Formats: sequence, structure tokens, C-alpha cells
Amino acid sequence: MNFINEDFLLKSETAKKLFHEYAKSEPIFDFHCHLSPKEIYENKNFSDITEVWLGGDHYKWRAMRSLGIDESIITGKDADSFEKFEKWAETIQYAIGNPLYHWTHLELQRFFDIYEPLTKESARRIYDKINSLLSRDDFKVCELIKKSNVKFINTTDDPADTLEWHKLLREEKDLGFKVFPAFRPDKALNIDAKTFADYIKTLGEAGGKEIKTFADLTSVLESRMDLFGEMGCCASDHAFTYVPCVKASEAEIDSILAKALNGEAVCVDEIDKYKTALMLFLGAQYAKRGWAMEMHMNIKRDNNTKMFEKMGPDTGFDCISDWSSAEGLTNLLDALAYNDNLPKTIIFAGNPADNQVFGTILGCFQSSDAPSKIQFGTAWWFNDNKDGMEAQIKALGNLGVLGKFIGMLTDSRSFLSYPRHEYFRRILCNIIGQWIEDGEYADDIEFAGKLVKDICFGNAVNYFNVK
Amino acid sequence: MNFINEDFLLKSETAKKLFHEYAKSEPIFDFHCHLSPKEIYENKNFSDITEVWLGGDHYKWRAMRSLGIDESIITGKDADSFEKFEKWAETIQYAIGNPLYHWTHLELQRFFDIYEPLTKESARRIYDKINSLLSRDDFKVCELIKKSNVKFINTTDDPADTLEWHKLLREEKDLGFKVFPAFRPDKALNIDAKTFADYIKTLGEAGGKEIKTFADLTSVLESRMDLFGEMGCCASDHAFTYVPCVKASEAEIDSILAKALNGEAVCVDEIDKYKTALMLFLGAQYAKRGWAMEMHMNIKRDNNTKMFEKMGPDTGFDCISDWSSAEGLTNLLDALAYNDNLPKTIIFAGNPADNQVFGTILGCFQSSDAPSKIQFGTAWWFNDNKDGMEAQIKALGNLGVLGKFIGMLTDSRSFLSYPRHEYFRRILCNIIGQWIEDGEYADDIEFAGKLVKDICFGNAVNYFNVK
Amino acid sequence: MNFINEDFLLKSETAKKLFHEYAKSEPIFDFHCHLSPKEIYENKNFSDITEVWLGGDHYKWRAMRSLGIDESIITGKDADSFEKFEKWAETIQYAIGNPLYHWTHLELQRFFDIYEPLTKESARRIYDKINSLLSRDDFKVCELIKKSNVKFINTTDDPADTLEWHKLLREEKDLGFKVFPAFRPDKALNIDAKTFADYIKTLGEAGGKEIKTFADLTSVLESRMDLFGEMGCCASDHAFTYVPCVKASEAEIDSILAKALNGEAVCVDEIDKYKTALMLFLGAQYAKRGWAMEMHMNIKRDNNTKMFEKMGPDTGFDCISDWSSAEGLTNLLDALAYNDNLPKTIIFAGNPADNQVFGTILGCFQSSDAPSKIQFGTAWWFNDNKDGMEAQIKALGNLGVLGKFIGMLTDSRSFLSYPRHEYFRRILCNIIGQWIEDGEYADDIEFAGKLVKDICFGNAVNYFNVK
Repeated sequence: MNFINEDFLLKSETAKKLFHEYAKSEPIFDFHCHLSPKEIYENKNFSDITEVWLGGDHYKWRAMRSLGIDESIITGKDADSFEKFEKWAETIQYAIGNPLYHWTHLELQRFFDIYEPLTKESARRIYDKINSLLSRDDFKVCELIKKSNVKFINTTDDPADTLEWHKLLREEKDLGFKVFPAFRPDKALNIDAKTFADYIKTLGEAGGKEIKTFADLTSVLESRMDLFGEMGCCASDHAFTYVPCVKASEAEIDSILAKALNGEAVCVDEIDKYKTALMLFLGAQYAKRGWAMEMHMNIKRDNNTKMFEKMGPDTGFDCISDWSSAEGLTNLLDALAYNDNLPKTIIFAGNPADNQVFGTILGCFQSSDAPSKIQFGTAWWFNDNKDGMEAQIKALGNLGVLGKFIGMLTDSRSFLSYPRHEYFRRILCNIIGQWIEDGEYADDIEFAGKLVKDICFGNAVNYFNVK
Repeated sequence: MNFINEDFLLKSETAKKLFHEYAKSEPIFDFHCHLSPKEIYENKNFSDITEVWLGGDHYKWRAMRSLGIDESIITGKDADSFEKFEKWAETIQYAIGNPLYHWTHLELQRFFDIYEPLTKESARRIYDKINSLLSRDDFKVCELIKKSNVKFINTTDDPADTLEWHKLLREEKDLGFKVFPAFRPDKALNIDAKTFADYIKTLGEAGGKEIKTFADLTSVLESRMDLFGEMGCCASDHAFTYVPCVKASEAEIDSILAKALNGEAVCVDEIDKYKTALMLFLGAQYAKRGWAMEMHMNIKRDNNTKMFEKMGPDTGFDCISDWSSAEGLTNLLDALAYNDNLPKTIIFAGNPADNQVFGTILGCFQSSDAPSKIQFGTAWWFNDNKDGMEAQIKALGNLGVLGKFIGMLTDSRSFLSYPRHEYFRRILCNIIGQWIEDGEYADDIEFAGKLVKDICFGNAVNYFNVK
Repeated sequence: MNFINEDFLLKSETAKKLFHEYAKSEPIFDFHCHLSPKEIYENKNFSDITEVWLGGDHYKWRAMRSLGIDESIITGKDADSFEKFEKWAETIQYAIGNPLYHWTHLELQRFFDIYEPLTKESARRIYDKINSLLSRDDFKVCELIKKSNVKFINTTDDPADTLEWHKLLREEKDLGFKVFPAFRPDKALNIDAKTFADYIKTLGEAGGKEIKTFADLTSVLESRMDLFGEMGCCASDHAFTYVPCVKASEAEIDSILAKALNGEAVCVDEIDKYKTALMLFLGAQYAKRGWAMEMHMNIKRDNNTKMFEKMGPDTGFDCISDWSSAEGLTNLLDALAYNDNLPKTIIFAGNPADNQVFGTILGCFQSSDAPSKIQFGTAWWFNDNKDGMEAQIKALGNLGVLGKFIGMLTDSRSFLSYPRHEYFRRILCNIIGQWIEDGEYADDIEFAGKLVKDICFGNAVNYFNVK
């Protein structure tokens, strides 16, 4: 029986050796995810696999919609829990070739010791077995994290956040892993959002200072970054459609900001200038603090207005986009580098057609500040699948120094997503093992094993400089 | 002897099983092609393989030009039939890695029982054998179609077309397959074409109403759609460079239309507004009628003006283009969806760099109207080759629900092109077979076989809702 | 021991046969490189492998920067030669999957008979062995070239160049290979460069005529092309970000040129018009002279201003870009073709996402002027690796006539780079061998072997029409 067995995705003996003897037991640094620090602190139990799997995972919702299942069963509050689960089981059977298929079965195996395929037929059996386990103490959130050998977690947090749960988590003695906030100022950057003026008001309140000028804004953000730093923050996080780089005077930025705070519309040129100014400020701050700047590129969000009005953001209506980023991104990084303000930077491609563009931008800004200071982020979001990961790993191999890659993250909202690290590690070991067996790399398993371990965990620990 | 044998492209035992026991004998629904309903009705015989293969196939002409063959031998009227054929044989020998090589030999095998490679040396032998067969009754057009196990055909028809041959075909009792028109209003959309005003006049005549306003236009198109519907039409068909979405008032559209009808130039913004308005109308109509909207994207046509002046369109001078479509396409689909006017939609990528963009746009607009209501069309035109098909199938696998894919079409002008379905099926079975053997999908051959059969035929029948 | 052995990259028996019996012993036509004709004429010896490998190779510098090595050790003048070499050895160990890894070891094997992997541990041993060889007569530049079986070399030369070293090389009787200049008028095209006015002055001096008008410019360029022609030139060479095609009157071009010569800024529209006019002139000249026009696309250069100010161009700070080229490129080629002025053209993709666009533009402009008159250039610069080459070869296979491909070039500044041809040939033979073993091409090793030999050498000799 081949089905997702212990040698899953490992097609050569060297690949198997690399995975089982080097990669498998490395700890996890999940340096970008959307886990809730509150839920970690409260160490809650889930009572129902339908809640865990289908309560908020818009990847799964999309797949169910693609099968033609009615929305009332997918996200409806009145639908029966098992009916939802059964429809999910049916969906997964048709989703051949989809990473959801692999993730689902890895989660069944690693957390619940279930090794049979999920089908319409097995759905009831599997549903009952999981639900009988979920209420146990060893299925509480912190146990799931520890069972997954996670050592460090970066959550995703708004600058206006109080970080109260992070404070409480830091006071815990024996958590077994560490949780840091990550600084995600998207709402402060998105001056064209309808909610911008309200948000800036909230941010000012959090910072204890009314924000009227760009100087007010940067001052408040600086004080928030101080707080994030006290909580162990080592990374920021940004979502970009495209990266602009249009410089303007501070006076001009002030007037653009004033317009937006006054509820007036701002044009594309103004948006670009504002974002450029704020990124130049933020980048310099990150550099000074030793934080990494994560940039997630080329996703177009909330494309279905009707569903957005019903369900809000992050409900499964986003797509990969095709904006050009080479010009703006290189110019922004150049402007930061010119003044020695360029922080460690991780560039994530939303569109895999950008792999080679981003993979070569890295090399323009490397320095002795850190090994592979500018990182090509792992295959992300829609690319987080076998083909996407292979493409990213090979692109980085061809264009950079793969041995210094900081590797995988989950980007997930679920405590059951850690097998995605295992999935990545199997793919990584398979590629490197094949290269060695094909004579494309020296047959030195010790050194290759060290590279693999570094990519799994050690490089990220060094890069983010956490303890 | 391995050469294109019965296990061609099937590299695993499971792949072979899937193809031979499930895929091979499924019927064909060729839901987009350029066959002539007149030639089908007249059930003509071709007398000469050179006429069949080189009479109008601009794929082959391009290859011959690439070898450096003189145009007089490729498309010249005076060139000797066998000389042309021999040059084609020579071309194919150099076209290693080209789908034309595979298609040519599949056609030789399936229709003419010829299993040796076509070369300069074998050309005469093969030419004579084929020509001795072509005049036989069992090589008439309808016999070729039936021999290929085709059950449904969508041709490609202009709204001004009388559909007279379709009418005659519907009156036939025992055709053995069904032929439907497909509604292709490109000429009504291309307001920037030199021939636009003339075309609108023709269209008005066909609809019995002079077209002066946008309301006139939509009224005529509606009546033409009624006629298409009576002939069994279940699909429309559109070629886009990029998809615009720029809204305007009907008064503004009227004035843009008036300019164009008056022979005045229209600017890009006007073109985009006109096309948007017409697509919003057409999309709503298709939705109401239950038709699918096929969108073929990102091809730049007629790039060689000198040859265009000599030979006209569709003569082998088109290329893949690199326009951005994410913005316009998502906005257009969103505008339709917002008013519950979004029809079933099939998006075909002209540029494979768009695979991931289109593959994720699907998921933003799925609903319970139909299983995979928004389809990612099979690898099309220049992508209709092994690598292109593998890329499309894997992209759809990763990003959507492959089990609901409606599969292959020929897009062809030739009655000998049906082995392209076989080619697709072999590639599909090879991918799925490999996944199963690698433990990436449950080892349930019955269910996998059902998926394969569905993708070959059943899904398309359900999707287009034909009988 | 598999490590880069005689069957490196050859995975099937047919691939091995094609490489060893057909490809391996074919001569080399290196039709685009950056070798110094002066160094060839002087037939110099290098004394130190660090000088050869790290003296000017910005590919290697990038990799070392990516490892986090300090610039003083990478390019610093004071750093110890062995220390640099040792750091390079360490870099290469981490650069798993990078073509530098393969190139380095192929060079060690072919030139220095060193078969062990380069590591931090082996660095001293290897360094000493190479340096003991380099001073020998059989390691002079011309011996390296002859040992590599090179028959023809196109260097890269500015129109203002005196070609003095080319003159001297042509007077040599027994060089064993031929060296031609290639005409690279980038500086005459880049009207937006700060150095443009100065350059045009220099060019005028070289041509014996002050350049004030476009007619002056074309007259001087024509006389320079005459000189290049006398030196055996058969190719020009162009770097484009994107290709413009915006036509203007000669009077308008004159006024744009006058502005630029006067040190005034020119806007994008003016730049595009000037470049279009000059390319239309140059293309027609190339056509008349039978020269090939090489176009290198979509690279964004000198992205790190701080390092540019320190080190100048070509120091490792370039990246792949994402400009759209389909529109401008097809229109420019069309304008040339319309007046029968289209030269043989070789299009190189900087961004592999353009492979399918360029691969289909070819077919729009082929003619009986030459077999595959419009060529899709081999995987270039950042794409010059196994994955990039496979992608280019398969794209050309799918979209054109691979049998007429003119194959590989080094684009290198180093006399040790010729094993890149071997690397390419192994990849080519592996692909074709696999196709034959999979039954995707006739099992006629003689004919396939002929195709392989043609692609390695013969097609380029015919294409450039050299003797």
C-alpha cells in the first residue's frame, strides 16, 4: 500500500535518508501564521472536527464551492455538522492533485492515527473517531503545537493591537515553545481603503496621540514597534498588490494624508507616494531593530463583491494577479539600501510567474549583514503545493544560495496545519536526494544533511536571531 | 518498437489501465471547433491528403516556413501536390518535440493504419496509400466523425449567419452524432476593426432591423440568439486580447457606437467601454439561456502585415501576447455576478504564464449553479501540446477541483483532428496514474476511472446540458 | 561514484549514445561572448586561478554576497588570493542546485583533470594544483580555446572601437580558430543615458564626422559597419529592457537627437521614437549585409545605486524584469518585414515567463531567407542552467522547428567557460534521447544524431554563413 506512507514523496534512497535521518526530527519555526494568541493562551479544546476544519478555512470553502455545493452547507450556521463533513469528504475525492488532499490525509495520520483515505464512505467512521479524540487533554491547542515539535511561532498582529495575549503568554513559564507577535501595518498603508480614516483614529488612540500629520503617524508607529519589540517581535509583514516607489516631500505626504483623513478620495499617484514614504520609514525602522521585512506580493483580494458584502474578507474570493513589480520593488529596496536602511527582507511571490524576477532581485541587495539577507520566501498561498514548492526551491537553487534558505511557514489559521512543514521537508529532501543520486551534487550525505537541517530550522533561527 | 505504440505517453501500469479500460472508449464532445457544417451536411470526400493536411492548416504552414521552405510550395496554388506533401514530411522530421509530429502520426495510425514514421523517404509510399483510401465511402466526412466516436460537436458561427446548414443537419435522422452552432459575436465586439460598420450593417440585415443604437444592437443580437437557441446552441465563444471592464452610461455607449458606425476612430477608453457594456449584456443573456461563455485570451493576431495583405487572417501569423487580464477579467465577472447574471464561463489561457492567475480566478466565482461553473479551459492553441497540457492539468489540480473538469476540445478546422482527444486522454491518464502509483491519491481504480471518464466526456455533457 | 561523471545529465541509453557518438566531438561556434580580442592576440597566461575565476565574474560575486561574505574578500584588492578562493569553495558548497556548482566542477575536470568536489577542505589542494598548471604554455589563452575545440568566436564590440586587435588576429596564420567582432550599438541607442552626448562625440570622432543629425549618425554607423564587415562581422547585438515601436518623422528624430546632444532630458515617448527610428535603420542595414540581429530582452541593470557608484556596471547587481514586449517587438519586426528589411533575428528571453511569447513571435516572420530565420535564442544569463535550458529547448520544440536551432553560446568573459557548451549538449541529448526512448520520436539514431550535431555546430555555421 503506497498511499501517503512513510516514504511519501521520497523517490530515491538518498531522499529517504535525508528526510528520515536529518529533516524529520528538526523543530519548527513557524515564522508567519495567523494563529490566535488568545486561543493559544486559553489552550482551548475543539469539540468537533467540522469546526476545526471548516469553521474558517477558506481554502476548503473554495474547493467545496468548486464542486457546486450550496453555500448554506459550506458556511451556513444551520447546516448539520456531519453533513458538512461528509460534503467535505466528497469534495476531497474530486480534488485529485490538490494540496488539500495531501494536507487532509497528513493531518488524519499525524494527529489522529487514521491511515485510510477520506471518502464519502469512510466519512462517518472518521468523523466519529476524531470527535472522540478532540475533547481529550492531549488534543488541547498547546499539546497540538508541542506534538508538532514547534519551538517558535510568529503570529500576525495589527500595530493598534494591545498584544495583551502575547503579554500573558510571555509570563507563562513552561509553554514548551515561544510565541512572538509580527508587525503587520497594512491598514496604515492602505490609504485608499474606505476604513482608513477610522483605522488611523484607532491607531492614534492605541498610541495615545491624535494622528494629523505624517510625523504623528510615524511617531505612533514607532511607539507601537517599541511595544512589539518588548514582546519579542522579530518580523514585520506586508501585503502588496504591486510595490510602488514614487518619492515626494514630507509636505506633500502630509497633504495626501490630510485628504484621506478628511474622507476625500486619493488618486493612484498619491497612494503610491504615501506608501513609498511610509515604507521608507518602516524599512529603516526594521533595519534599526534587526527585524525582517516580509513582503507578500501580487494577490488581488475580495473579487466577489456580492459575497464580500455577505461574508467580509478572507472568505475565499481572492486570486493571483499579474501586476509588474520589478521596477517598484528594486527602486524601493535601492532607496533603502542607498541610505543603509535596508532591513533583512523576505519576498514572497503570489504569482509564480514572478519566481525568476524575485529570485534575481535578491542578488542585487545581498550583503554581509546576514547570510542571504534578502530571502526568496517559500512557495506561498496558492503556490503552497508540490509543484509550487518544487518551482520555488529550484528557482532559488538556480538563482541564489539554497543552503541559506530559511524555509517553510504555514500561513495558516489552523492548529492542525503543521504537517505542511513535513510536506515541504519531503519535497525538499526529494529534490536534493535526486540531485545527489544524479551526480549533480557531491555525494556527501553529512554535508547535504546539514544543509537540509539548516533549511528546516537552523537558518530561520539564525536569521530572525531569536532565543 | 516503442514508436507511438498502444502505450504511447503512458508510463505506469496504472496509467495504462486508466487509459485502456476507462478513457479510450469514452465518446467525444468537441465543444469548440471550426468544422464546417456545410461540409458535414454534404458529407464530402477529400481526394488528396495534401488538400486535407495542407489546404488550410496554418499550424503546418508555420512549421514549413520555419524550415525555410518557399511560400510558393507551402500555400502556392501551382505547386505540385506531392511536392508539398514531401516538403511537409521533411518538415516533420526536423520538428522534433512538436505536437504536429505526434498528431500527424496519430492520424496516420488511426485513420489510415499506417504505423511507420513519416519521412522524406516514406513520403511517396504513405502519400499513395492514403490517397487510395480517401475516395472510399468510409472516408467521407461523417464516417470520419463516427469512426472517431464523436457524439456532439459545437461549431463556431457568426451571429449574422443564417445557420442554414445547421437547420438541414437537424432534419437528418441518422447522423450518429449531433452538431450545434456556437455563438461567436467577436465582430460585433471589435468596434475598432475597419470592417465594423459594414459588419453591423450585415448583422442588422440578418436581424431585420437597422442598427443605430446600442438598444438596436442588443435587440438584434437577442433575436439572433433565439435562432441559435432553436438550433441547439449551448455555448458562446469570445476572443480577447485583454478583458476590459470600464462602465459607462447607455447614452455614452450610444455615442461611441454612432461614431464607429459613422466611420470615425474610437479611442482605447471608448473601445473598453463599448466592449464592457456589450459583454455585460451578452453575459446576462447567456446566463438566462443556460449557455456557457467561452473566453479565449491573450493572442495577438495578424502580426505580419505584408502576409496579411496577401493571405488574410488565420494564415499562421499570430502569437501569444502578454497583456494583463486579472484586473479586467475579475471586475467583469464580478459585475455580472453582482446582478446574478454570471453565466457558466470557460476561461482559456493563450499565454501559459497566466495559468495560475486564471486558475485562481475560477474559485472566486464558483457557486451551486453547476459543478465547477467557472472552468479553466484545456491547454489551448499554442499550448495544445504535452507540456502545455500537463501544465494546465496540474495547475487546475492544484488550484481547483480537477474531477469536475470538462476536458478537451480540438479547436480544429480538420476532420482528421480527433486523435487530439486521444492525445489529451493519454496525458491525463498518465498524470493521474502516476499520482496513484506515487501514493499521492487513494489506490481506488474504480473511482479514479470514474473521474477520468467524467473528464473525457460526462462532465462536458452535464455542463452543457445537451441531450 | 556518480558525481559529474562521463554520463552526467544523461539518463537514458539513447541520450548517452547521442552525446558520446554525435554531440561531444562537434566543434564550437561561440556566437556571443565577451572575451577580449586583445587577450586572445597576446595569448596571455593567467598565474592564479583566483584571478581567472574571481577577477571579473559577477555571477560568482553574487553567490558569495548571498552567503554573507564581506565585499572586501569578494572584490577587495587587498584580500589574500587563497582566502578568496577558499571562500569561493565554501560558497559553492552551499550553492546546491546552482549552475555555478556544475560549471565549476566541469572546468576543474576538463582543464585541470581534477575530479574531486571543491570544498572548504579540498580548497588548498585544488588551488595549488591549478596554480602549478596555469603558468604552463599549454594553459595560455589560445591553447585553452583550441583544447575546447572552438572554431569560431564572435566577441562584443562597440561601433566606436578601432578593432585593432581584430585586425591583428586576422593577420595571424595559424590561430586554429577564427575571431570576429560583433556590432553592439547599445550606447548609440541609449539616448537617455547620462553619457550619451559624450559617446556620440566619440563615435563621430571614430567615424571622422561630427554627428549633429540623424543622417550624420546613420552615415557614421554605416561606415563603422563597413569596418566591422571587413573584419568578418556576421552579427549585431542589442540589449533591450522592452522593445519600442513608435514611428516619427526624420525631422522629429533630428530634434530629439539635438535635445539629447545638448544635454537636455528626453521623455519616454521621445526615447521610444528615437530607438524605433534607429532600429529600423540598423535592421535594414543588417539585412542588407546578411548579419544576424541578436536581441537580449528584459533585464533591469544596475539596481543597487550605492554599489554602482563604487563598482560600475556588470558587477552583479542586475535582475530579470517583467516589461511587456509582445506589442513593441512584433510591431518592430513587422515594420522591418513590410519593407523587406527584416534581418535574420535571434531573440533571447531574459525572463523565462516570456518563452512562449517569443517562441510564437518567431513563427510570424519566418521565410525562405534562411532555415529558422527568426531564432529563439538559447536560455540566457540567469536562465543558463539546467531548468532554464530544458524550458527553452522544450518551448522551441513545441512552438518551432527544433532541428534548425542554432544552439548554445557562452556570453562569458572567461576563457574557461567552454564547458557550458558541453553542459548544454548533455541537456539537449538527454531530452532528445528520452523522447526517442518514450516513443515520441522515430527511433532513427542516425537522423536524430544529425539533428544533434546540427544544433551543436552546423546550424550556426550555416546561419551566420561563416567560413
